[in-house]
Amino acid sequence: MAPKVFYISDGTAITAEVFGHAVLSQFPLEFESLTIPFVETLAKAENVKRQINDCFITTGERPLVFHSIVKPEIRDIIYSSEGLDYDFLNTFVAPLEQHLGVSASPVLHRTHGKANHGYEARIDAINFAMDNDDGQTMKHMDQADLILLGVSRCGKTPSSLYLSMQFGIKAANYPFTEDDMDNLKLPEALKRNKKKLFGLTIDPVRLHEIRQSRMENSRYSSLKQCRLEVKEVEMMFKRERIPYIDTTNHSVEEIATKILDVTGLERHMF
Amino acid sequence: MAPKVFYISDGTAITAEVFGHAVLSQFPLEFESLTIPFVETLAKAENVKRQINDCFITTGERPLVFHSIVKPEIRDIIYSSEGLDYDFLNTFVAPLEQHLGVSASPVLHRTHGKANHGYEARIDAINFAMDNDDGQTMKHMDQADLILLGVSRCGKTPSSLYLSMQFGIKAANYPFTEDDMDNLKLPEALKRNKKKLFGLTIDPVRLHEIRQSRMENSRYSSLKQCRLEVKEVEMMFKRERIPYIDTTNHSVEEIATKILDVTGLERHMF
Repeated sequence: MAPKVFYISDGTAITAEVFGHAVLSQFPLEFESLTIPFVETLAKAENVKRQINDCFITTGERPLVFHSIVKPEIRDIIYSSEGLDYDFLNTFVAPLEQHLGVSASPVLHRTHGKANHGYEARIDAINFAMDNDDGQTMKHMDQADLILLGVSRCGKTPSSLYLSMQFGIKAANYPFTEDDMDNLKLPEALKRNKKKLFGLTIDPVRLHEIRQSRMENSRYSSLKQCRLEVKEVEMMFKRERIPYIDTTNHSVEEIATKILDVTGLERHMF
Repeated sequence: MAPKVFYISDGTAITAEVFGHAVLSQFPLEFESLTIPFVETLAKAENVKRQINDCFITTGERPLVFHSIVKPEIRDIIYSSEGLDYDFLNTFVAPLEQHLGVSASPVLHRTHGKANHGYEARIDAINFAMDNDDGQTMKHMDQADLILLGVSRCGKTPSSLYLSMQFGIKAANYPFTEDDMDNLKLPEALKRNKKKLFGLTIDPVRLHEIRQSRMENSRYSSLKQCRLEVKEVEMMFKRERIPYIDTTNHSVEEIATKILDVTGLERHMF
Protein backbone atom coordinates (compact mmCIF):
# COMPACT_ATOMS: atom_id res chain seq x y z
CA MET A 1 0.00 0.00 0.00
CA ALA A 2 1.32 3.45 -0.94
CA PRO A 3 2.28 5.48 2.15
CA LYS A 4 -0.11 8.36 2.83
CA VAL A 5 1.17 11.93 2.82
CA PHE A 6 -0.44 15.20 3.92
CA TYR A 7 0.79 18.63 2.79
CA ILE A 8 -0.60 21.24 5.15
CA SER A 9 -0.26 25.00 5.40
CA ASP A 10 -2.01 28.11 6.63
CA GLY A 11 -1.01 29.62 3.26
CA THR A 12 -1.08 28.19 -0.27
CA ALA A 13 0.78 24.98 0.72
CA ILE A 14 2.98 25.39 -2.36
CA THR A 15 6.13 25.55 -0.24
CA ALA A 16 5.10 22.46 1.75
CA GLU A 17 4.49 20.60 -1.51
CA VAL A 18 7.77 21.59 -3.17
CA PHE A 19 9.68 20.67 -0.03
CA GLY A 20 7.90 17.38 0.61
CA HIS A 21 8.03 16.42 -3.05
CA ALA A 22 11.80 17.01 -3.16
CA VAL A 23 12.37 14.89 -0.06
CA LEU A 24 10.04 12.05 -1.12
CA SER A 25 11.49 11.93 -4.64
CA GLN A 26 14.65 10.53 -3.03
CA PHE A 27 12.72 7.31 -2.40
CA PRO A 28 11.86 4.65 -4.99
CA LEU A 29 8.24 4.55 -3.82
CA GLU A 30 4.84 5.83 -4.88
CA PHE A 31 3.03 7.98 -2.32
CA GLU A 32 -0.62 8.90 -2.04
CA SER A 33 -0.91 12.56 -1.15
CA LEU A 34 -3.51 15.08 -0.06
CA THR A 35 -2.87 18.83 0.06
CA ILE A 36 -4.81 21.01 2.49
CA PRO A 37 -4.11 24.76 2.08
CA PHE A 38 -5.46 27.77 3.99
CA VAL A 39 -5.76 26.07 7.40
CA GLU A 40 -6.15 29.45 9.05
CA THR A 41 -8.53 28.80 11.94
CA LEU A 42 -8.45 26.54 14.99
CA ALA A 43 -11.65 24.84 13.77
CA LYS A 44 -10.05 24.02 10.41
CA ALA A 45 -6.93 22.73 12.17
CA GLU A 46 -9.02 20.43 14.39
CA ASN A 47 -10.72 19.15 11.27
CA VAL A 48 -7.37 18.39 9.62
CA LYS A 49 -6.20 16.65 12.80
CA ARG A 50 -9.28 14.42 12.61
CA GLN A 51 -8.49 13.56 8.97
CA ILE A 52 -4.93 12.62 9.90
CA ASN A 53 -6.11 10.49 12.83
CA ASP A 54 -8.79 8.79 10.68
CA CYS A 55 -6.11 7.97 8.13
CA PHE A 56 -4.02 6.35 10.87
CA ILE A 57 -6.98 4.31 12.14
CA THR A 58 -7.95 3.15 8.63
CA THR A 59 -4.48 2.23 7.39
CA GLY A 60 -2.75 1.29 10.64
CA GLU A 61 0.20 3.42 9.50
CA ARG A 62 1.02 6.88 10.76
CA PRO A 63 0.75 9.21 7.74
CA LEU A 64 3.60 11.56 6.83
CA VAL A 65 2.75 15.20 7.44
CA PHE A 66 4.78 17.90 5.68
CA HIS A 67 3.81 21.33 6.84
CA SER A 68 4.85 24.94 6.66
CA ILE A 69 2.55 26.49 9.22
CA VAL A 70 3.40 29.96 10.41
CA LYS A 71 0.87 30.43 13.25
CA PRO A 72 2.03 28.58 16.43
CA GLU A 73 -1.49 27.82 17.72
CA ILE A 74 -2.40 26.12 14.42
CA ARG A 75 0.88 24.23 14.37
CA ASP A 76 0.34 22.89 17.89
CA ILE A 77 -2.94 21.26 16.87
CA ILE A 78 -1.31 19.52 13.88
CA TYR A 79 1.59 18.43 16.11
CA SER A 80 -0.88 16.77 18.48
CA SER A 81 -2.22 14.50 15.71
CA GLU A 82 -1.10 10.92 15.04
CA GLY A 83 0.86 12.01 11.95
CA LEU A 84 4.65 11.98 11.66
CA ASP A 85 5.60 15.66 11.45
CA TYR A 86 8.19 16.98 9.04
CA ASP A 87 8.30 20.64 9.92
CA PHE A 88 11.05 22.08 7.77
CA LEU A 89 10.33 25.72 8.59
CA ASN A 90 10.93 25.40 12.30
CA THR A 91 13.71 22.86 12.05
CA PHE A 92 15.81 25.52 10.35
CA VAL A 93 14.45 28.69 11.90
CA ALA A 94 15.89 28.11 15.40
CA PRO A 95 19.55 27.65 14.33
CA LEU A 96 19.19 30.63 11.98
CA GLU A 97 17.88 32.83 14.79
CA GLN A 98 20.99 32.00 16.74
CA HIS A 99 23.37 32.65 13.86
CA LEU A 100 21.72 35.89 12.74
CA GLY A 101 21.14 37.16 16.27
CA VAL A 102 17.63 38.15 15.17
CA SER A 103 14.32 36.63 16.22
CA ALA A 104 12.06 35.31 13.50
CA SER A 105 8.88 37.37 13.15
CA PRO A 106 6.61 35.12 11.15
CA VAL A 107 4.08 36.85 8.94
CA LEU A 108 1.52 34.82 7.07
CA HIS A 109 1.55 34.84 3.26
CA ARG A 110 5.00 36.36 3.03
CA THR A 111 6.31 33.54 0.84
CA HIS A 112 3.68 33.35 -1.87
CA GLY A 113 1.67 36.46 -1.10
CA LYS A 114 1.42 39.73 -2.92
CA ALA A 115 3.26 41.82 -0.33
CA ASN A 116 6.33 40.30 -1.85
CA HIS A 117 8.14 43.14 -3.57
CA GLY A 118 8.46 42.86 -7.30
CA TYR A 119 5.02 41.33 -7.66
CA GLU A 120 3.88 43.94 -10.20
CA ALA A 121 7.09 43.47 -12.18
CA ARG A 122 6.36 39.77 -12.33
CA ILE A 123 2.82 40.29 -13.65
CA ASP A 124 4.28 42.71 -16.21
CA ALA A 125 6.74 39.99 -17.26
CA ILE A 126 3.92 37.45 -17.68
CA ASN A 127 1.91 39.89 -19.79
CA PHE A 128 5.03 40.67 -21.81
CA ALA A 129 5.60 36.97 -22.54
CA MET A 130 1.96 36.58 -23.63
CA ASP A 131 1.99 39.68 -25.85
CA ASN A 132 5.30 38.74 -27.46
CA ASP A 133 4.75 35.04 -27.97
CA ASP A 134 5.43 33.37 -31.30
CA GLY A 135 6.65 36.49 -33.11
CA GLN A 136 3.16 38.02 -33.17
CA THR A 137 4.75 41.47 -32.98
CA MET A 138 8.30 42.85 -33.23
CA LYS A 139 7.39 46.16 -31.61
CA HIS A 140 8.62 45.38 -28.11
CA MET A 141 11.83 43.47 -28.81
CA ASP A 142 13.89 46.40 -27.50
CA GLN A 143 12.17 46.01 -24.10
CA ALA A 144 12.79 42.25 -23.84
CA ASP A 145 15.32 40.78 -21.41
CA LEU A 146 15.62 37.70 -23.58
CA ILE A 147 14.40 36.52 -27.01
CA LEU A 148 14.07 32.78 -27.62
CA LEU A 149 14.42 31.49 -31.18
CA GLY A 150 13.65 28.15 -32.78
CA VAL A 151 11.41 26.07 -35.03
CA SER A 152 7.72 25.61 -34.29
CA ARG A 153 7.06 23.28 -31.29
CA CYS A 154 10.62 23.12 -29.95
CA GLY A 155 9.60 24.48 -26.52
CA LYS A 156 9.78 28.27 -26.93
CA THR A 157 6.36 29.12 -25.49
CA PRO A 158 6.43 27.05 -22.26
CA SER A 159 10.01 28.20 -21.63
CA SER A 160 9.15 31.90 -22.10
CA LEU A 161 6.14 31.60 -19.82
CA TYR A 162 8.09 29.76 -17.15
CA LEU A 163 10.90 32.33 -17.24
CA SER A 164 8.40 35.15 -16.77
CA MET A 165 6.31 33.40 -14.13
CA GLN A 166 9.10 31.96 -12.00
CA PHE A 167 11.89 34.49 -12.46
CA GLY A 168 10.22 37.72 -13.67
CA ILE A 169 12.20 37.70 -16.94
CA LYS A 170 10.65 39.54 -19.89
CA ALA A 171 11.01 36.80 -22.48
CA ALA A 172 9.81 37.17 -26.07
CA ASN A 173 9.99 34.35 -28.58
CA TYR A 174 10.23 34.18 -32.35
CA PRO A 175 9.64 31.16 -34.62
CA PHE A 176 11.34 30.20 -37.87
CA THR A 177 8.81 28.59 -40.19
CA GLU A 178 8.75 26.60 -43.40
CA ASP A 179 8.67 29.77 -45.48
CA ASP A 180 11.87 31.07 -43.89
CA MET A 181 13.93 28.02 -44.76
CA ASP A 182 15.13 29.00 -48.24
CA ASN A 183 16.84 32.08 -46.98
CA LEU A 184 17.17 31.96 -43.21
CA LYS A 185 18.18 35.25 -41.66
CA LEU A 186 17.48 37.39 -38.63
CA PRO A 187 14.86 40.14 -38.91
CA GLU A 188 16.14 43.65 -38.22
CA ALA A 189 14.48 43.90 -34.77
CA LEU A 190 16.36 40.77 -33.70
CA LYS A 191 19.67 41.83 -35.25
CA ARG A 192 19.82 44.97 -33.18
CA ASN A 193 19.04 42.91 -30.06
CA LYS A 194 21.67 40.29 -30.84
CA LYS A 195 22.86 39.96 -27.25
CA LYS A 196 19.40 38.92 -26.07
CA LEU A 197 19.03 36.05 -28.54
CA PHE A 198 19.03 32.47 -27.33
CA GLY A 199 18.28 29.43 -29.47
CA LEU A 200 16.35 26.26 -28.71
CA THR A 201 16.72 23.13 -30.76
CA ILE A 202 15.26 19.64 -30.58
CA ASP A 203 15.79 16.14 -31.92
CA PRO A 204 13.97 15.95 -35.32
CA VAL A 205 12.38 12.58 -34.51
CA ARG A 206 10.89 13.94 -31.28
CA LEU A 207 9.75 17.08 -33.13
CA HIS A 208 8.06 14.89 -35.73
CA GLU A 209 6.14 13.07 -32.95
CA ILE A 210 5.02 16.33 -31.34
CA ARG A 211 3.90 17.84 -34.65
CA GLN A 212 2.11 14.62 -35.65
CA SER A 213 -0.10 14.93 -32.58
CA ARG A 214 -1.01 18.49 -33.65
CA MET A 215 -1.38 18.02 -37.41
CA GLU A 216 -1.19 14.42 -38.49
CA ASN A 217 0.35 13.47 -41.83
CA SER A 218 0.94 17.03 -42.95
CA ARG A 219 4.01 18.41 -44.65
CA TYR A 220 4.56 20.44 -41.44
CA SER A 221 4.76 17.28 -39.34
CA SER A 222 6.71 15.10 -41.79
CA LEU A 223 10.04 13.79 -40.57
CA LYS A 224 11.69 15.18 -43.70
CA GLN A 225 10.48 18.71 -42.98
CA CYS A 226 11.41 18.43 -39.29
CA ARG A 227 14.95 17.34 -40.20
CA LEU A 228 15.32 20.17 -42.71
CA GLU A 229 14.10 22.89 -40.34
CA VAL A 230 16.22 21.73 -37.40
CA LYS A 231 19.32 21.51 -39.59
CA GLU A 232 18.85 24.94 -41.16
CA VAL A 233 18.11 26.65 -37.85
CA GLU A 234 21.05 25.02 -36.05
CA MET A 235 23.32 26.16 -38.88
CA MET A 236 22.06 29.68 -38.47
CA PHE A 237 22.64 29.60 -34.67
CA LYS A 238 26.25 28.60 -35.38
CA ARG A 239 26.74 31.11 -38.20
CA GLU A 240 25.37 33.97 -36.09
CA ARG A 241 27.08 32.72 -32.91
CA ILE A 242 23.78 32.51 -31.02
CA PRO A 243 24.07 30.28 -27.93
CA TYR A 244 21.56 27.42 -27.98
CA ILE A 245 20.49 24.29 -26.12
CA ASP A 246 18.74 21.07 -27.03
CA THR A 247 15.38 20.78 -25.26
CA THR A 248 14.67 17.13 -26.16
CA ASN A 249 15.39 15.58 -22.78
CA HIS A 250 14.79 18.57 -20.54
CA SER A 251 11.88 19.96 -18.55
CA VAL A 252 10.89 23.65 -18.73
CA GLU A 253 12.53 24.14 -15.32
CA GLU A 254 15.80 22.76 -16.62
CA ILE A 255 15.65 24.71 -19.88
CA ALA A 256 14.84 27.96 -18.06
CA THR A 257 17.56 27.66 -15.43
CA LYS A 258 20.09 26.52 -18.04
CA ILE A 259 19.37 29.67 -20.08
CA LEU A 260 19.83 31.90 -17.04
CA ASP A 261 23.04 30.07 -16.22
CA VAL A 262 24.48 30.57 -19.72
CA THR A 263 23.31 34.18 -20.22
CA GLY A 264 23.99 35.39 -16.69
CA LEU A 265 20.49 36.94 -16.50
CA GLU A 266 19.48 37.51 -12.90
CA ARG A 267 16.73 35.46 -11.28
CA HIS A 268 14.12 37.55 -9.52
CA MET A 269 12.51 35.63 -6.76
CA PHE A 270 8.91 35.79 -5.62
CA MET B 1 25.25 44.74 5.82
CA ALA B 2 22.77 42.26 4.32
CA PRO B 3 23.69 38.66 5.19
CA LYS B 4 24.97 36.70 2.18
CA VAL B 5 23.12 33.61 1.01
CA PHE B 6 24.06 30.90 -1.49
CA TYR B 7 21.52 28.57 -3.12
CA ILE B 8 23.35 25.58 -4.54
CA SER B 9 22.27 22.45 -6.36
CA ASP B 10 23.43 19.83 -8.81
CA GLY B 11 20.02 20.32 -10.48
CA THR B 12 18.03 23.47 -11.27
CA ALA B 13 18.35 24.87 -7.70
CA ILE B 14 14.64 25.72 -7.78
CA THR B 15 13.94 23.51 -4.77
CA ALA B 16 16.86 25.03 -2.83
CA GLU B 17 15.53 28.52 -3.61
CA VAL B 18 11.92 27.80 -2.67
CA PHE B 19 13.04 26.18 0.56
CA GLY B 20 15.58 28.84 1.52
CA HIS B 21 13.25 31.65 0.55
CA ALA B 22 10.47 30.22 2.75
CA VAL B 23 12.81 29.92 5.74
CA LEU B 24 14.41 33.35 5.30
CA SER B 25 11.06 35.08 4.80
CA GLN B 26 10.43 34.36 8.49
CA PHE B 27 13.05 37.01 9.30
CA PRO B 28 12.56 40.78 9.09
CA LEU B 29 15.84 41.18 7.17
CA GLU B 30 17.04 41.74 3.64
CA PHE B 31 19.42 39.11 2.29
CA GLU B 32 21.82 39.23 -0.63
CA SER B 33 21.62 35.98 -2.54
CA LEU B 34 23.42 34.12 -5.29
CA THR B 35 22.05 30.99 -6.96
CA ILE B 36 24.42 28.43 -8.48
CA PRO B 37 22.63 25.59 -10.33
CA PHE B 38 24.03 22.55 -12.16
CA VAL B 39 27.04 21.98 -9.88
CA GLU B 40 27.51 18.53 -11.35
CA THR B 41 31.28 18.02 -11.34
CA LEU B 42 33.95 18.00 -8.63
CA ALA B 43 35.72 20.88 -10.39
CA LYS B 44 32.57 23.01 -10.30
CA ALA B 45 32.03 22.13 -6.64
CA GLU B 46 35.60 23.19 -5.77
CA ASN B 47 34.95 26.44 -7.58
CA VAL B 48 31.77 27.06 -5.57
CA LYS B 49 33.65 26.25 -2.37
CA ARG B 50 36.20 28.93 -3.27
CA GLN B 51 33.41 31.47 -3.85
CA ILE B 52 31.91 30.68 -0.45
CA ASN B 53 35.29 30.96 1.26
CA ASP B 54 36.09 34.23 -0.54
CA CYS B 55 32.76 35.61 0.64
CA PHE B 56 33.68 34.69 4.22
CA ILE B 57 37.09 36.36 3.92
CA THR B 58 35.65 39.53 2.36
CA THR B 59 32.72 40.00 4.73
CA GLY B 60 34.06 38.39 7.91
CA GLU B 61 30.70 36.58 8.20
CA ARG B 62 30.07 32.97 7.32
CA PRO B 63 27.53 32.99 4.47
CA LEU B 64 24.35 30.91 4.66
CA VAL B 65 24.34 28.00 2.25
CA PHE B 66 21.03 26.38 1.32
CA HIS B 67 21.53 23.33 -0.80
CA SER B 68 19.70 20.37 -2.25
CA ILE B 69 22.59 18.32 -3.59
CA VAL B 70 21.88 14.73 -4.48
CA LYS B 71 25.41 13.44 -5.22
CA PRO B 72 27.33 12.71 -1.97
CA GLU B 73 30.79 13.53 -3.37
CA ILE B 74 29.60 16.99 -4.48
CA ARG B 75 27.88 17.58 -1.16
CA ASP B 76 31.03 16.73 0.80
CA ILE B 77 32.98 19.46 -0.96
CA ILE B 78 30.32 22.08 -0.18
CA TYR B 79 30.19 20.84 3.43
CA SER B 80 33.94 21.44 3.74
CA SER B 81 33.56 25.15 2.91
CA GLU B 82 33.32 27.99 5.43
CA GLY B 83 29.58 28.38 4.79
CA LEU B 84 26.84 27.53 7.28
CA ASP B 85 25.05 24.56 5.73
CA TYR B 86 21.30 24.21 5.67
CA ASP B 87 20.82 20.85 4.04
CA PHE B 88 17.11 20.23 4.16
CA LEU B 89 17.15 17.16 1.93
CA ASN B 90 19.38 15.09 4.17
CA THR B 91 18.04 16.43 7.43
CA PHE B 92 14.73 14.79 6.59
CA VAL B 93 15.84 11.83 4.51
CA ALA B 94 17.45 9.86 7.38
CA PRO B 95 14.38 9.83 9.69
CA LEU B 96 12.19 9.00 6.69
CA GLU B 97 14.39 6.04 5.77
CA GLN B 98 13.86 4.71 9.24
CA HIS B 99 10.12 5.22 9.23
CA LEU B 100 9.56 3.82 5.73
CA GLY B 101 12.03 0.97 6.17
CA VAL B 102 13.37 1.79 2.70
CA SER B 103 16.73 3.27 1.77
CA ALA B 104 16.75 6.47 -0.23
CA SER B 105 18.07 5.96 -3.76
CA PRO B 106 18.83 9.46 -4.91
CA VAL B 107 18.54 10.11 -8.62
CA LEU B 108 19.51 13.45 -10.06
CA HIS B 109 16.86 15.61 -11.75
CA ARG B 110 13.97 13.63 -10.34
CA THR B 111 12.37 16.70 -8.78
CA HIS B 112 12.31 19.13 -11.67
CA GLY B 113 13.31 16.84 -14.52
CA LYS B 114 11.31 15.47 -17.38
CA ALA B 115 11.27 11.84 -16.19
CA ASN B 116 8.57 13.04 -13.88
CA HIS B 117 5.41 11.35 -15.05
CA GLY B 118 2.71 13.64 -16.33
CA TYR B 119 5.19 15.98 -17.96
CA GLU B 120 3.50 15.77 -21.37
CA ALA B 121 0.11 16.39 -19.77
CA ARG B 122 1.52 19.51 -18.19
CA ILE B 123 2.85 20.86 -21.49
CA ASP B 124 -0.56 20.10 -23.01
CA ALA B 125 -2.18 22.10 -20.22
CA ILE B 126 0.13 25.08 -20.86
CA ASN B 127 -0.65 24.98 -24.58
CA PHE B 128 -4.35 24.69 -23.77
CA ALA B 129 -4.21 27.79 -21.56
CA MET B 130 -2.40 29.74 -24.31
CA ASP B 131 -4.81 28.65 -27.05
CA ASN B 132 -7.88 29.38 -24.95
CA ASP B 133 -6.84 32.67 -23.41
CA ASP B 134 -9.12 35.68 -23.42
CA GLY B 135 -12.04 34.00 -25.18
CA GLN B 136 -10.17 33.84 -28.50
CA THR B 137 -12.07 30.66 -29.32
CA MET B 138 -14.99 28.77 -27.79
CA LYS B 139 -14.19 25.54 -29.64
CA HIS B 140 -12.40 23.75 -26.81
CA MET B 141 -14.51 24.74 -23.80
CA ASP B 142 -15.80 21.16 -23.51
CA GLN B 143 -12.20 19.96 -22.98
CA ALA B 144 -11.40 22.52 -20.26
CA ASP B 145 -11.03 21.51 -16.60
CA LEU B 146 -11.86 25.06 -15.55
CA ILE B 147 -13.07 28.29 -17.21
CA LEU B 148 -12.23 31.60 -15.53
CA LEU B 149 -14.55 34.56 -16.11
CA GLY B 150 -14.22 38.27 -15.39
CA VAL B 151 -13.69 41.78 -16.71
CA SER B 152 -10.57 42.73 -18.66
CA ARG B 153 -7.42 42.96 -16.44
CA CYS B 154 -8.85 41.31 -13.33
CA GLY B 155 -6.17 38.57 -13.32
CA LYS B 156 -7.63 35.85 -15.56
CA THR B 157 -4.58 35.31 -17.78
CA PRO B 158 -1.83 35.00 -15.12
CA SER B 159 -4.13 32.77 -13.05
CA SER B 160 -4.90 30.44 -15.99
CA LEU B 161 -1.22 30.19 -16.89
CA TYR B 162 -0.19 29.50 -13.32
CA LEU B 163 -2.86 26.80 -12.90
CA SER B 164 -1.63 25.06 -16.06
CA MET B 165 2.08 25.45 -15.33
CA GLN B 166 2.06 24.55 -11.63
CA PHE B 167 -0.83 22.11 -11.39
CA GLY B 168 -1.43 20.80 -14.94
CA ILE B 169 -5.00 22.16 -15.00
CA LYS B 170 -6.50 22.89 -18.43
CA ALA B 171 -7.76 26.39 -17.72
CA ALA B 172 -9.52 28.53 -20.33
CA ASN B 173 -10.59 32.09 -19.67
CA TYR B 174 -13.29 34.34 -21.05
CA PRO B 175 -13.62 38.12 -20.70
CA PHE B 176 -16.73 40.29 -20.39
CA THR B 177 -16.19 43.57 -22.22
CA GLU B 178 -17.79 46.98 -22.49
CA ASP B 179 -20.06 45.78 -25.31
CA ASP B 180 -21.47 42.97 -23.17
CA MET B 181 -22.61 45.24 -20.35
CA ASP B 182 -26.07 46.17 -21.62
CA ASN B 183 -27.19 42.60 -21.69
CA LEU B 184 -24.81 40.42 -19.75
CA LYS B 185 -25.32 36.72 -20.30
CA LEU B 186 -23.37 33.52 -20.69
CA PRO B 187 -22.56 32.30 -24.21
CA GLU B 188 -23.92 28.87 -25.06
CA ALA B 189 -20.50 27.14 -24.83
CA LEU B 190 -20.16 28.38 -21.26
CA LYS B 191 -23.73 27.55 -20.28
CA ARG B 192 -23.29 23.90 -21.10
CA ASN B 193 -20.05 23.89 -19.07
CA LYS B 194 -21.64 25.61 -16.08
CA LYS B 195 -19.88 23.45 -13.50
CA LYS B 196 -16.46 24.52 -14.77
CA LEU B 197 -17.10 28.25 -14.44
CA PHE B 198 -15.27 30.29 -11.82
CA GLY B 199 -15.41 34.08 -11.51
CA LEU B 200 -12.71 36.60 -10.67
CA THR B 201 -13.50 40.09 -9.50
CA ILE B 202 -11.42 43.06 -8.40
CA ASP B 203 -11.73 46.37 -6.58
CA PRO B 204 -12.80 48.98 -9.20
CA VAL B 205 -10.24 51.55 -7.99
CA ARG B 206 -7.40 49.05 -8.39
CA LEU B 207 -8.79 48.03 -11.80
CA HIS B 208 -8.82 51.68 -12.83
CA GLU B 209 -5.12 52.01 -11.87
CA ILE B 210 -4.17 48.88 -13.83
CA ARG B 211 -6.10 49.96 -16.92
CA GLN B 212 -4.69 53.49 -16.73
CA SER B 213 -1.19 52.09 -17.08
CA ARG B 214 -2.30 50.23 -20.23
CA MET B 215 -4.51 52.88 -21.86
CA GLU B 216 -4.37 56.21 -20.12
CA ASN B 217 -7.45 58.45 -19.96
CA SER B 218 -9.60 56.21 -22.11
CA ARG B 219 -13.20 55.28 -21.54
CA TYR B 220 -11.93 51.73 -20.94
CA SER B 221 -9.75 52.86 -18.05
CA SER B 222 -12.14 55.41 -16.52
CA LEU B 223 -13.17 54.79 -12.93
CA LYS B 224 -16.81 55.09 -13.97
CA GLN B 225 -16.48 52.31 -16.55
CA CYS B 226 -14.51 50.11 -14.13
CA ARG B 227 -17.20 50.49 -11.47
CA LEU B 228 -19.95 49.68 -13.95
CA GLU B 229 -18.26 46.55 -15.34
CA VAL B 230 -17.34 45.15 -11.92
CA LYS B 231 -20.87 45.73 -10.61
CA GLU B 232 -22.58 44.14 -13.61
CA VAL B 233 -20.29 41.12 -13.68
CA GLU B 234 -20.57 40.50 -9.92
CA MET B 235 -24.36 40.65 -10.25
CA MET B 236 -24.19 38.05 -12.99
CA PHE B 237 -21.96 35.76 -10.88
CA LYS B 238 -24.59 35.92 -8.14
CA ARG B 239 -27.55 35.50 -10.49
CA GLU B 240 -25.96 32.47 -12.17
CA ARG B 241 -24.58 31.10 -8.88
CA ILE B 242 -21.02 31.08 -10.20
CA PRO B 243 -18.47 30.92 -7.35
CA TYR B 244 -16.03 33.84 -7.43
CA ILE B 245 -13.17 35.45 -5.54
CA ASP B 246 -11.72 38.93 -5.28
CA THR B 247 -8.17 39.07 -6.65
CA THR B 248 -7.31 42.58 -5.42
CA ASN B 249 -5.03 41.60 -2.55
CA HIS B 250 -3.93 38.18 -3.71
CA SER B 251 -0.99 36.77 -5.65
CA VAL B 252 -1.47 34.32 -8.54
CA GLU B 253 -0.36 31.51 -6.21
CA GLU B 254 -3.07 32.42 -3.72
CA ILE B 255 -5.74 32.85 -6.39
CA ALA B 256 -4.85 29.54 -8.04
CA THR B 257 -4.78 27.50 -4.83
CA LYS B 258 -7.97 29.17 -3.58
CA ILE B 259 -9.75 28.14 -6.80
CA LEU B 260 -8.58 24.54 -6.44
CA ASP B 261 -9.67 24.58 -2.81
CA VAL B 262 -13.19 25.82 -3.65
CA THR B 263 -13.74 23.68 -6.76
CA GLY B 264 -12.11 20.51 -5.45
CA LEU B 265 -10.05 20.19 -8.67
CA GLU B 266 -7.06 17.94 -8.11
CA ARG B 267 -3.52 19.33 -8.09
CA HIS B 268 -1.15 17.43 -10.33
CA MET B 269 2.37 17.75 -9.10
CA PHE B 270 5.53 17.96 -11.18
